[in-house]
Amino acid sequence: MKLVSFSVNGQQSFGLVKDESVIDLKKHLDGKYEDLKSLLAEDDFLSIVKAKADATADYTLAEIEFEPVIPNPGQIFCIGLNYADHVQETQKQVTEKPVIFFRLAPSQVGHKQPLLKPVETEKFDYEGEIAVVIGKGGRRIAKEDAWDHIAGYSCYNDGSVRDWQLHTAQWGPGKNFFKTGGFGPWLVTTDEIPANKTMTLVTRVNGQELQRAQTTQLIHDIPSLINYISTFTPLSAGDVIVSGTPGGIGLKRTPPVLLNEGDVVEIEVDKIGILSNVVKNDG
Amino acid sequence: MKLVSFSVNGQQSFGLVKDESVIDLKKHLDGKYEDLKSLLAEDDFLSIVKAKADATADYTLAEIEFEPVIPNPGQIFCIGLNYADHVQETQKQVTEKPVIFFRLAPSQVGHKQPLLKPVETEKFDYEGEIAVVIGKGGRRIAKEDAWDHIAGYSCYNDGSVRDWQLHTAQWGPGKNFFKTGGFGPWLVTTDEIPANKTMTLVTRVNGQELQRAQTTQLIHDIPSLINYISTFTPLSAGDVIVSGTPGGIGLKRTPPVLLNEGDVVEIEVDKIGILSNVVKNDG
Repeated sequence: MKLVSFSVNGQQSFGLVKDESVIDLKKHLDGKYEDLKSLLAEDDFLSIVKAKADATADYTLAEIEFEPVIPNPGQIFCIGLNYADHVQETQKQVTEKPVIFFRLAPSQVGHKQPLLKPVETEKFDYEGEIAVVIGKGGRRIAKEDAWDHIAGYSCYNDGSVRDWQLHTAQWGPGKNFFKTGGFGPWLVTTDEIPANKTMTLVTRVNGQELQRAQTTQLIHDIPSLINYISTFTPLSAGDVIVSGTPGGIGLKRTPPVLLNEGDVVEIEVDKIGILSNVVKNDG
Repeated sequence: MKLVSFSVNGQQSFGLVKDESVIDLKKHLDGKYEDLKSLLAEDDFLSIVKAKADATADYTLAEIEFEPVIPNPGQIFCIGLNYADHVQETQKQVTEKPVIFFRLAPSQVGHKQPLLKPVETEKFDYEGEIAVVIGKGGRRIAKEDAWDHIAGYSCYNDGSVRDWQLHTAQWGPGKNFFKTGGFGPWLVTTDEIPANKTMTLVTRVNGQELQRAQTTQLIHDIPSLINYISTFTPLSAGDVIVSGTPGGIGLKRTPPVLLNEGDVVEIEVDKIGILSNVVKNDG
């Protein structure tokens, strides 16, 4: 199933996407769940949604404004250096433990919302990634149990302001400019993407393919990430793990491909769909 | 004024501390504000609190459980390498821009709540710091306006799991183990600590003084931090800036002073008070 966070006339809600239409689940579940994150906290959220799957659609996709799949995650973990070709292009080393940094909620936008290029940079870059969204929470989750804690998957553009990322050894500032990261279009739940299913990730800028990888190439696979992260912090419903970008980032291309107003960035994952955002100048 | 987040019988609230007693502001403000963060979002929160300052006290300090001053910050920014003696002991370089990493809310505990030493480490360390709590939000805040965006100050123990901090070049995992950071005992508002007031920070473990510094020694001062951070992300009420630790951390002492069950860590700031936490084994 495809679950979406959206707004209509400024009112935030979340729903089930069926073909080109949207069933408003906040409404059809009688306001019991404030947001998609709250619904995902229910062990049987898939059944709860399925029971409403035949309700009359409330909107067409054209009528909603897509919000980030989880607009208000408690924790967003981003994984660095998790594909060999990206490790190589950045002249770094593969690490025994995953490289973890954090994004904050204000840095996110939804599908079709503009990515904001800050006035402070000429080095605004894309990073296509696959996002894992947590359903069932937990601490110190064993690898063999990790798949059971996943609610589903989405596309993510870990938009990066390269000069600010490299101001110091800690990457956070360049990874957290306001509205620089795309997260969408929706969550595809695990009934459609079962455990360990291979996914293919492609990044395009203005139609040109610049990154391509498969989840089989992840250095630290998804169960390892869930195990490692949940060792230090409890995972909760709606937490997001952005699993890493493959080789082909804009800064390291010859010549570099950096983003400017009007550029369109698409992140496509074969089992999910296409996240598309246009770049707009900010500030 | 001293504002505190607390719980009684598992019910979270927030209040005004007067000597040894607490006025429950959630109750006396008729539930209008869910938590301290919501109250700080009001431009005139100082007047709102002052209007209740003569209400009958609801609890003594002994009757409340202290929670982290802000239990649910939207963003917690920690500053690395911001005192010269700490830069020196870690054999790093002073950076032109501030070193920023993030803590997440689950990593925090309040005054007198135990700090949890994870089973995964023998390198659990203290870092005494001064926390700046944001009141009025904003983006791209000029240094000269920065003081107006501060609600107040508190003590912070940026508890660090040193081996996990150094798994990779990104420090986040070692800075975010569950319940390893102390934040309290309360927020002292800017009517008592005016702009640019010098504060003295002292860290003690089991009564022995191990760190001492003054805010005049900060490499990147508080207005510079607010300016830099708000350039990349909007600051909101309740956001926390943990301003950096001075020299004398446990890992770099000869011999090292690392924390074990039963150790008591105190962070004292002269204008604020003492944050005290006992270490307890976790997991």
